[in-house]
Amino acid sequence: MNAMKGTQSIAFSESPYLVSAGSVAGKKEGEGPLGKYFDIASEDDLFGEKTWELAEGTMQKLACKLALKNAGVQPEEVRYLFGGDLLRQGIATSMGAEELQIPVFGLFGACSTSGEALALAAMTVAAGYGDLVLAATSSHFGSAEKEFRFPLGYANQRPLSSTWTVTGSGAFLVGKKKSRVRISGVTIGKIVDYGLKDSQNMGACMAPAACDTILQNLMDFGRGEKDYDRIITGDLGYVGQSILFDLLRKKGLDIKENHMDCGMTIFDQQTQHTNSGGSGCGCAAITLAAYIMPQLISGEWKRILFVPTGALMSTVSFNEGESVPGIAHGIVLEHC
Amino acid sequence: MNAMKGTQSIAFSESPYLVSAGSVAGKKEGEGPLGKYFDIASEDDLFGEKTWELAEGTMQKLACKLALKNAGVQPEEVRYLFGGDLLRQGIATSMGAEELQIPVFGLFGACSTSGEALALAAMTVAAGYGDLVLAATSSHFGSAEKEFRFPLGYANQRPLSSTWTVTGSGAFLVGKKKSRVRISGVTIGKIVDYGLKDSQNMGACMAPAACDTILQNLMDFGRGEKDYDRIITGDLGYVGQSILFDLLRKKGLDIKENHMDCGMTIFDQQTQHTNSGGSGCGCAAITLAAYIMPQLISGEWKRILFVPTGALMSTVSFNEGESVPGIAHGIVLEHC
Repeated sequence: MNAMKGTQSIAFSESPYLVSAGSVAGKKEGEGPLGKYFDIASEDDLFGEKTWELAEGTMQKLACKLALKNAGVQPEEVRYLFGGDLLRQGIATSMGAEELQIPVFGLFGACSTSGEALALAAMTVAAGYGDLVLAATSSHFGSAEKEFRFPLGYANQRPLSSTWTVTGSGAFLVGKKKSRVRISGVTIGKIVDYGLKDSQNMGACMAPAACDTILQNLMDFGRGEKDYDRIITGDLGYVGQSILFDLLRKKGLDIKENHMDCGMTIFDQQTQHTNSGGSGCGCAAITLAAYIMPQLISGEWKRILFVPTGALMSTVSFNEGESVPGIAHGIVLEHC
Repeated sequence: MNAMKGTQSIAFSESPYLVSAGSVAGKKEGEGPLGKYFDIASEDDLFGEKTWELAEGTMQKLACKLALKNAGVQPEEVRYLFGGDLLRQGIATSMGAEELQIPVFGLFGACSTSGEALALAAMTVAAGYGDLVLAATSSHFGSAEKEFRFPLGYANQRPLSSTWTVTGSGAFLVGKKKSRVRISGVTIGKIVDYGLKDSQNMGACMAPAACDTILQNLMDFGRGEKDYDRIITGDLGYVGQSILFDLLRKKGLDIKENHMDCGMTIFDQQTQHTNSGGSGCGCAAITLAAYIMPQLISGEWKRILFVPTGALMSTVSFNEGESVPGIAHGIVLEHC
């Protein structure tokens, strides 16, 4: 039997596998430190489409098709798709998922959505509701800047605490089909609100949620921080990382040696001018697909905690003066 | 064991129960035909808040608290919350769920979200991932008009095919705790796109998806339309209903006698000037909570198919000339 662990976690008795992944990235991401690992790094951020939204939908569709191809699976063999993005009314996912004709659950968890999708996909497979399930998320610099910030042509200055939305989509096939990586458990996050209101400092808004979920995961599974080869947050960036370290230190925990942040890994801060780091649902997703998964497959890392982090806000909420709470979901991935 | 049925459905071996519900409605809804059934019908559509978004969040929080109270359950006994709304980045759900401090899965399925939330809540309980899980959705006329249409003060004319967004939130406690209503199965919908582009005729955009999910449900469970006392769509309205009847007739199916649409039931079209009917994630949710559930509890209806319908669009997508595809999820509810 699958077991509830502690107050927020689930341990799977027969762990679903991360069967395969597909990663699609934009031009800047292709020029970054992880460039050579992506399945596709496009020279054209419009992906042949006429709008940023269609481009993001196309990325998500491509990522799903790559995940299927990498596992030799046809779309009709996939029972459900869990998908999401950052845009209003999850339009990139709708546009991307439509052609695949797989029954779809639309999700929104800001940049934590890749964790939410993987958790639900694993829960679905482990419960016997489907043998193969897709989890797909995306973000796009063009569509996100338009959604949340300024017209690109306005060329506004970006504070040092700001992050750069990753153009990318990662899709994962989760299933009973054996692979070298299994999802052994999940920890579902609560909304954590420290009252911060700076939408240009999302790392600070999300760090408390990351701290909460990491602590909860360790408590629920009875583990110490050293039981993970890496604890990998989504997109805290340089600013969020230092806050996370401070918060954890107050709880007597030091994860400096085994912490990694996808937002800090995906770009070269110095040469790519990405300030605090990369962000977006695509950031953690393509870093997992292209860089983290291979290390789990090879056994370089035996067990990691993957913690995508999200800042829960809309332009309406922050223009109305509301705070930006955070949420983070934890996924335990193991070499097998 | 829970069983996959056909290509899109799940039959639960130990069906989770719809333990309790909470319904919160606005002023116009309180004056409509279902007014007397809601737990709360507020005279103040702002619910004491200063913005429509906060009002909607407050409604969702109130609905959750009512569902808990109606079952004598404390928030800390609830393992997970599945929630969503129509607003960009699901902000009403974030605002509403924050205070409850229940681990949360954010969803987006437009007006089908109440079906998506109930399906995932039932799947979670039936799999043993939680004994009590909440499913909550909301919509608000004020926040939705601002999000999708015109400033309220502009007083634009509404075409006859348009619908009126319901101000309301319905929350459901799904769990192992016995009640008189069980969720025996679910059918997860695909995105169905007939290429329609009229965001003021959402009934027409969603009817093909409703047709698809109803047919799939009957096929997956080997049932005829008469095996349901009612087949209840979310918010097709008068226009969408007649299209659904036409589409089903072409497939040799006549559901005229046992069809009900929440959007047609919640308002009095003649006196309340709601044109095609009510809509929004709150529409199907509060109709289920306040009107449908009691008929299932009493045994007046033995088995129904609840099919909330969603139109997948954003202001960006329709301003860019994209079509408005639909999605619908089916929930089988039985008296027990």
